[in-house]
Amino acid sequence: MLEHFFSPKTVAVVGASREEGKVGHDLLKNLAKHGYKGKIYPVNPHTENILGIKTYTALKEIPDKIDLAVIVVPAPYVGKAVDECIEKGIDSVIVISAGFKESGIDGAARERELYQKIKQHSMRMLGPNCLGLIDTQSALNASFAADMPAPGNIAFFSQSGALCTSILDWAVNECIGFSKFISMGNKTDIDEVDLIKAIENDDNTKVVLVYLEGVKNGAEFINAAKKITKIKPMIVVKSGGTTAGAKAASSHTGTLAGAENAFDAAFKQSGILRAETIQELFDYARIFSFQQLPKGPHIALITNAGGPGIIAADAVERSKLKMASFSKDTINILRSSLPAMANVYNPVDVLGDAKADRYKFVIEKVIEDPNVDVVLVILTPQTMTEIEKTAEIITEISNRTGKPIVTSFMGGKRIENSLKIMCQRKVPNYPFPERAVSAIEAMYKYTLWQKRPAPKAKIFDVQKEQVASFFEKMKQAGRQHLNEEEARQVISAYGFRIPKSILAATESEAVKAAEEIGYPVVIKISSPDILHKSDFGGVRVGIKNETEVRNCFCEITQKARRLMPDADIKGVLVQQMVTGGKEVILGMSRDPQFGPLLMFGLGGIYIEILKDVSFRIAPIGLNEAEEMIQEIRSFPLLKGARGERPVDINTVVDNILRLSQLVTDFPEIIEMDINPLLVFPEGGGTMALDARMTIS
Amino acid sequence: MLEHFFSPKTVAVVGASREEGKVGHDLLKNLAKHGYKGKIYPVNPHTENILGIKTYTALKEIPDKIDLAVIVVPAPYVGKAVDECIEKGIDSVIVISAGFKESGIDGAARERELYQKIKQHSMRMLGPNCLGLIDTQSALNASFAADMPAPGNIAFFSQSGALCTSILDWAVNECIGFSKFISMGNKTDIDEVDLIKAIENDDNTKVVLVYLEGVKNGAEFINAAKKITKIKPMIVVKSGGTTAGAKAASSHTGTLAGAENAFDAAFKQSGILRAETIQELFDYARIFSFQQLPKGPHIALITNAGGPGIIAADAVERSKLKMASFSKDTINILRSSLPAMANVYNPVDVLGDAKADRYKFVIEKVIEDPNVDVVLVILTPQTMTEIEKTAEIITEISNRTGKPIVTSFMGGKRIENSLKIMCQRKVPNYPFPERAVSAIEAMYKYTLWQKRPAPKAKIFDVQKEQVASFFEKMKQAGRQHLNEEEARQVISAYGFRIPKSILAATESEAVKAAEEIGYPVVIKISSPDILHKSDFGGVRVGIKNETEVRNCFCEITQKARRLMPDADIKGVLVQQMVTGGKEVILGMSRDPQFGPLLMFGLGGIYIEILKDVSFRIAPIGLNEAEEMIQEIRSFPLLKGARGERPVDINTVVDNILRLSQLVTDFPEIIEMDINPLLVFPEGGGTMALDARMTIS
Repeated sequence: MLEHFFSPKTVAVVGASREEGKVGHDLLKNLAKHGYKGKIYPVNPHTENILGIKTYTALKEIPDKIDLAVIVVPAPYVGKAVDECIEKGIDSVIVISAGFKESGIDGAARERELYQKIKQHSMRMLGPNCLGLIDTQSALNASFAADMPAPGNIAFFSQSGALCTSILDWAVNECIGFSKFISMGNKTDIDEVDLIKAIENDDNTKVVLVYLEGVKNGAEFINAAKKITKIKPMIVVKSGGTTAGAKAASSHTGTLAGAENAFDAAFKQSGILRAETIQELFDYARIFSFQQLPKGPHIALITNAGGPGIIAADAVERSKLKMASFSKDTINILRSSLPAMANVYNPVDVLGDAKADRYKFVIEKVIEDPNVDVVLVILTPQTMTEIEKTAEIITEISNRTGKPIVTSFMGGKRIENSLKIMCQRKVPNYPFPERAVSAIEAMYKYTLWQKRPAPKAKIFDVQKEQVASFFEKMKQAGRQHLNEEEARQVISAYGFRIPKSILAATESEAVKAAEEIGYPVVIKISSPDILHKSDFGGVRVGIKNETEVRNCFCEITQKARRLMPDADIKGVLVQQMVTGGKEVILGMSRDPQFGPLLMFGLGGIYIEILKDVSFRIAPIGLNEAEEMIQEIRSFPLLKGARGERPVDINTVVDNILRLSQLVTDFPEIIEMDINPLLVFPEGGGTMALDARMTIS
Repeated sequence: MLEHFFSPKTVAVVGASREEGKVGHDLLKNLAKHGYKGKIYPVNPHTENILGIKTYTALKEIPDKIDLAVIVVPAPYVGKAVDECIEKGIDSVIVISAGFKESGIDGAARERELYQKIKQHSMRMLGPNCLGLIDTQSALNASFAADMPAPGNIAFFSQSGALCTSILDWAVNECIGFSKFISMGNKTDIDEVDLIKAIENDDNTKVVLVYLEGVKNGAEFINAAKKITKIKPMIVVKSGGTTAGAKAASSHTGTLAGAENAFDAAFKQSGILRAETIQELFDYARIFSFQQLPKGPHIALITNAGGPGIIAADAVERSKLKMASFSKDTINILRSSLPAMANVYNPVDVLGDAKADRYKFVIEKVIEDPNVDVVLVILTPQTMTEIEKTAEIITEISNRTGKPIVTSFMGGKRIENSLKIMCQRKVPNYPFPERAVSAIEAMYKYTLWQKRPAPKAKIFDVQKEQVASFFEKMKQAGRQHLNEEEARQVISAYGFRIPKSILAATESEAVKAAEEIGYPVVIKISSPDILHKSDFGGVRVGIKNETEVRNCFCEITQKARRLMPDADIKGVLVQQMVTGGKEVILGMSRDPQFGPLLMFGLGGIYIEILKDVSFRIAPIGLNEAEEMIQEIRSFPLLKGARGERPVDINTVVDNILRLSQLVTDFPEIIEMDINPLLVFPEGGGTMALDARMTIS
């Protein structure tokens, strides 16, 4: 995919310039000087030769077929340049030029026009407003970056061009090499999804690094990411970008959702490792690029200093890793060979006077221990420490072992040489043990993702047609908000159990309804205009007889008319009174980037105040629904705390999957809550007491 | 304080050695070669001269008075060396030698002996098992560290000697200088408290950095830290060290407490900035050492790249800092002078082609804005960027402004020179904007601490004597656990409101008691051996008449005898039934290092599962009690959520302070819970329904 971008045989530079410091010059120079084997055709009407390369006055003058055109002319001339590409039959263009969407209304119009042109002629375009791209395999540097990265196994693509320049510069000192390096610019055509697909089967790429501010198509992004992360790790830094903004939401789910939760859910579901900071992005990049994956979570710490050993052990404690317990053999051999003062248990303290040979002995013994999956070597530069020699030994062991080795040499001036040795030979070093542990943990998490079974889809037999025709009627009537009874009917059609309930327009209808259902009953105001009924006393429970029904009917409807004179009052809803069970809430809010964002949480007041909820993007599978439930902090309450019986978690899983199916079947549902969903003890199922729903 | 350690006029080195590489040699060399102006007296029976310094065969041969003796002989000879110090009238010694507590039972005995000797002769001792100390003011390097730090304004002391060597090495590259640099070793005599006191009024020290694994005396530590942090910031990394261990706890508080919570509470109460990692310790050290404090939280971001600007703004969003809103004047002048594409609002985007002059113009205008308290300048090395020149300009502005400036130059090779320029001229740079924001936030938090009023103490008029004599009786009877009624009486004596209750040994006594109290009542099993009554059904509520009392008495006592045949059953407690109110829990657990650790949380099942609790170390003042309440996540529930009335928070504050007074008055209370404490709506006070208490 996108072959003409990464390994074109011929490249034209439209807007190549003689003038040093100009983008059209720097770019041509980058193309020419880094060993690219294809043919380069500068296009410039005013000259015959730039940097010793024959220059053409126009694209059409070039005798050869052109695989890739790089356009660096000012924004107003980009359209014309693309027209010439079309004439010439070029299918791949990179538009470096700025002056599009990012620059205001005129630029945005220009960008739309450009996009239409591209689409009409089935071309692909990278940019506009980008730094360009680099492919070290084909030695193609079609960018105006100041550095050419070393070849390596990391593919990086970024929504920020400036960050690209920082990362290239950083990579030089860190011995980090890249396979592909792509600045996406405005992502008008080629976006993150195209690039993920292009990199998925690229054998030169072992790790994918991404800087994102948003995604263009959430569902496609998740699908593409799910596929690639089964093959290679993908590490993403996602920064704000999307204005949080005050979104008008009428449901709990709508209020609690938001772009950040959607991204977190999407990343979880697709096995993406989210780096919280740029530093973490680099830290993870280094370990994944340099080392192999650990087989398990058991880490051995080897240190020449107690304090840093404790610090590292603390960090392990807080992580998903586990301190390895050495085998008896390992302990015996360490004890018989190390000085008496040395600690032979994990963390192994080789003592401050340890020279390289002692480190070597211990690392070799420990890494052979079957209970050890990964080794972290900590070194502080003490008087007797052989810093470089120890580094040499570590790299030598790292080369021949099947387990990952990571180091934390702590210091400044005196350890500089040792760091160079290790980075050249692909042993990742971290200046502080906490960062080393965090990077190792990221690797371990990724192995868990790789082993994770694919989510089992579950499709229920539901009354989809009935819901479809109801929504049709709603739309014809120009209505957006379903009333409570309507919302309940919709979820009932998808298999949710709901309490018996009857709408009563008059007092005597209410009495009749109550008698049919059986006392005690609940009485609620019924109006499409009143969403939060209990806020103004529109819900009464435990109504025990006819007199109470009559009184209640009057009070509730009068109060509603008084407080909300414009509301359309349909009467009251008389409902079976259900008691017992724990309240949970299920909901969905449609995220602008990712679509249906499902929410689960413990109901009642705690959801609003403790915000103890979990999110996933629909459609989800069985294990994802289970994870949603297990993820909330108050999960132990559902499992049964202090001798209580556990609730019927299986039915909650079933209900979440039904909700997932409903909101996937009907993209017109933009927001909904099932609140409360009562969950009874194991085997007792659930009952949806109340629901609200808004359609577009 | 400790003058003889930091600026001795004469220093003797007992165990000075001719042999290079030996500690006794390296230490003497360090003393001799760094410009120390005092007199140095090596002691070595076998030679006359080391490094050109006249050597004495014994301390007593030295003609001069000795201010400080540094002992580097092997552990078994240290005692004798100290004896000779005593003879010579030396009052200050540093014991470098290892082989004490850290090396096993023999070493521990040796250390105890050493300590007794020191105490008997009113001497002070640093170590044993330490690296020594450095004072750059007096140019004293009485350590065997490989580096001599540059003079500077940071005092550092550490419980890990190895970490000292790493930090000294790191400091060289980072232009970080130290006033004092102290390795505490085993802290047998001089500990963190002594050093805090010694540094408090040291004019050469602006910032205090500490690495701790534990403290020797928690209360003294808090007091000393409270004093010093009002004058200068103190940043501490605290690592595990203390074995978490499974502590047998019979109260909720005991279960939820633990060393980490005690440390967190102590640090909060004493204004210590806790660094979570060594990297954070360094990050904070750099900004506090180099820059002045900001006057407020308003940060301006100036960047030549959109992406990093967003990353920084995200980090500000997550912190206690606020994005500054520029004045109209600033916006106008920026708009009229910057290119049209530049963003003149915060974060200011000076664009990728910004040279040094544009940075200069913007920084100068922004820093003059009265709405700006601190400026973060972000730079990515783009083609046109004048990296060093921009660095020069920033340092120049930093020198003449009254507001702190921090930078985040992002890159590697190309920014190396600029980093040197900035670190030499005391502008703190962070490789990633997130770390810069976090360091600025630490400064801002410290300004809040400095402005915070001293906690108001409040002493209540209580019946202390009564509790004292009751505890006396308990001790005489050899009892540890108070029964429910006893615990309630104790807290009642300290002003807690408790429900009426009467102990009934027989069925008819129970009936009589219920009638006296008035129906409905609560009946509970009464036994000193049964702590968690409700776990086995030992509590019945809503008992409405005589028959119910009789039935209940039989059932409860029989069940208790059956399930816990060895328990001493006193009968039942008949209690006034109180309803309404919110359940909270107050408790105390005595921490081995810090003493009485108070706990507050919302009661019921949520405390155990959500662990939503706050801690402070008693005694505390008014605002500290208030902070405890406001700190829990579920605080909004107490303030009144969704139209509920707020609870009587003032009385909860009062109760926490009474608890603080109680556990301060009686150190024999080792653990207690008041659970539940019912809190009624505002003005309604509280009632302690149940309490348990263990004394030593």
